[in-house]
Amino acid sequence: MRISQLSAVSGVPIPTIKYYLREGLLPAGEQTSATRAEYGERHVRRLRLIRALLEVGRLPIAAIRKVLAAVDDETLSMHLVLGTAHYALAPAVEPHPDDEAWREARSEADRLIAELGWRIDAQAPTRDELAQVILTLSRLGMPATGEALRPYAEAAMELVMEHEIGTISLDRTREEAVETLVVGTVVHGRALDVLRRLAQESTSAQLFGISGT
Amino acid sequence: MRISQLSAVSGVPIPTIKYYLREGLLPAGEQTSATRAEYGERHVRRLRLIRALLEVGRLPIAAIRKVLAAVDDETLSMHLVLGTAHYALAPAVEPHPDDEAWREARSEADRLIAELGWRIDAQAPTRDELAQVILTLSRLGMPATGEALRPYAEAAMELVMEHEIGTISLDRTREEAVETLVVGTVVHGRALDVLRRLAQESTSAQLFGISGT
Repeated sequence: MRISQLSAVSGVPIPTIKYYLREGLLPAGEQTSATRAEYGERHVRRLRLIRALLEVGRLPIAAIRKVLAAVDDETLSMHLVLGTAHYALAPAVEPHPDDEAWREARSEADRLIAELGWRIDAQAPTRDELAQVILTLSRLGMPATGEALRPYAEAAMELVMEHEIGTISLDRTREEAVETLVVGTVVHGRALDVLRRLAQESTSAQLFGISGT
Repeated sequence: MRISQLSAVSGVPIPTIKYYLREGLLPAGEQTSATRAEYGERHVRRLRLIRALLEVGRLPIAAIRKVLAAVDDETLSMHLVLGTAHYALAPAVEPHPDDEAWREARSEADRLIAELGWRIDAQAPTRDELAQVILTLSRLGMPATGEALRPYAEAAMELVMEHEIGTISLDRTREEAVETLVVGTVVHGRALDVLRRLAQESTSAQLFGISGT
């Protein structure tokens, strides 16, 4: 199809498509003449992936480029591609190994992961993210042990196993499977976050009423 | 206590405390002489709140100022204070009411909320956020009905009721209760997000192995 059709099918305006081509997010079409290129189903899928990472995942262009490079690198295992997406999604947390409270929080994070029996890379930045959450809870005088976070961990694992990775069909092409996995990670994360805030609004309305204190 | 003690107790450097004072995030201390001000427990708590919103919630200073103004406004109900925090946390989603696919997604979002029996303001921007998630899932050919999102909604509600708002003690001062509620919203949201990505990494390691495809 021509670029105008690609735009119509995907709902992405032509100037935006040209921008993605220039930025290397979208692979070039097949050049059929000096001024004409043909695009295919793969480009339609790729545009959907870019939009999901951009609009729902709110990843910056540079992070999207990294994720797409990992998706396209066929020498990477699924696990490593997904890891790249995770690291792009994770806000950078600076560890403070010379602060005793930080070291304790980090130990508590490692202990929770070990007790759950989860297989997490020793270098994963997510460990520091979890440590920061634990440190903040403890500073605020809120329950900050691994035990207090266990219900969150268990709910998260159940959703992932029953509705996300656990259900992915592996009889598709590697490219399709990887794309589904990456985008599912991003979109389901947003879904859970939105629904949690809705659940809070509803509970708050019930407990504290719409007006008055 | 003096500003130097406030810094020692809170772990926040003096220049940062002065910055928060200038920005109006932290109320001024009680002036005891031309060059000296006294700070109290309230300032320690407020500093913890600012750090949690900044480091864990990753809210911009302008959003933090709005949340704190709501916390301090005693004419607002708990429900409205929490609502202010929610709206500060929510990424702005632009609705597209002239796009049919958008309208369908928005209807599906409203239907799910109604079926769950949740009390959500008709104007809440969270409704548009949920619509955007549904629209993205449907574009990607993934299950995008309210039914598919129900397990996420139920898991979210259970956590909120059993470990968050549902457990908050209301026999504290309004200020303390509100602060706990706001910060719990932010920190538990981050906790769930981090743990979900950890659950994915672990599941991915088990299913796809550490190396190879």
